[in-house]
Amino acid sequence: MATGSSGSRRKRPRNRPPRVSVLRVGHRAGRDPRLTTHLALAARALGAERMFLHPADPDLSARLAEVVADWGGTFEVVGVPDWKSVVRAAPGPVVHLTMYGLPLDRVLPRIRGASDLLVVVGGAKVPPDLYRLADANVAVSHQPHSEVAALAVLLDRVLGVPGPGRLAGGRLAVVPRARGKKVREVRRSR
Amino acid sequence: MATGSSGSRRKRPRNRPPRVSVLRVGHRAGRDPRLTTHLALAARALGAERMFLHPADPDLSARLAEVVADWGGTFEVVGVPDWKSVVRAAPGPVVHLTMYGLPLDRVLPRIRGASDLLVVVGGAKVPPDLYRLADANVAVSHQPHSEVAALAVLLDRVLGVPGPGRLAGGRLAVVPRARGKKVREVRRSR
Repeated sequence: MATGSSGSRRKRPRNRPPRVSVLRVGHRAGRDPRLTTHLALAARALGAERMFLHPADPDLSARLAEVVADWGGTFEVVGVPDWKSVVRAAPGPVVHLTMYGLPLDRVLPRIRGASDLLVVVGGAKVPPDLYRLADANVAVSHQPHSEVAALAVLLDRVLGVPGPGRLAGGRLAVVPRARGKKVREVRRSR
Repeated sequence: MATGSSGSRRKRPRNRPPRVSVLRVGHRAGRDPRLTTHLALAARALGAERMFLHPADPDLSARLAEVVADWGGTFEVVGVPDWKSVVRAAPGPVVHLTMYGLPLDRVLPRIRGASDLLVVVGGAKVPPDLYRLADANVAVSHQPHSEVAALAVLLDRVLGVPGPGRLAGGRLAVVPRARGKKVREVRRSR
């Protein structure tokens, strides 16, 4: 792992969580729309800043843009024609989630202090190069799994679960309740 | 929440994690096969003992039985004709995961010490009764989300991530590696 070595991979001040991007490779627009949507929603809800998607899926990017318009924040799904260039351009450690990797607990201390983190999540077929290009191949349990679940656990361990409250620019916010549903709607300026 | 009051809801010895079952309501066999499969895989990989599924989906139960035959353990997907009876028969607290509920951090201390836990996960349409019948409605972030992600975070917070190693009765086990894939195959007796 190359954290802490070069200038661009410097550690951030203690207790400052990393900026996290997710890269989904091997998306099959026809077969995986709901699964990849769940992956993107989980990434957003648990504090990632963006999801790079290979191959691109403009419909899915548009659906997430609608969620952001309603619920706020700046999360986006960025279609990419070449996933390797995203990995190579990553400003911090690249963590590939795979059931074949090293246990999460072993890798976590090395990535929590990074300033930027790229989490790579494969689909049905994972390009073999990915294992080599990643700084760490990490398993969230070594059993057959869901990539949505693995991403969620990693994000919770690195960033924690965000509290309630409206995200900047959002129109809607949940008012947490013991029973039933309550949503607050904010009239936006302009 | 009714933990600790009746004999059957007694707390277990300290540090002994609860036995967790998952109940998925509102499954649509035609539309959700992959999502509910991911939910079941995540439940199994992160230590739940079974998933009750309403309505039943024999194909999905069979798929998970194949995973168990290969990878071990005793996890099963149990189709149920009536989800309310599962909730009412729960031997411990019933936690419904919903973005409208109370923050996870607030509810967690109350459920960690239970001996049994039923985690209820809704599909596209959640029956309104569920909010009333659950002992706790709990949000893993108050943003639009994935139920797979919410379940994964809850299970990790309650049970932790299982380490590597073959599960009892399994034929296959991952050998964790920094690069690439390695699976160990065990010849079963008989």
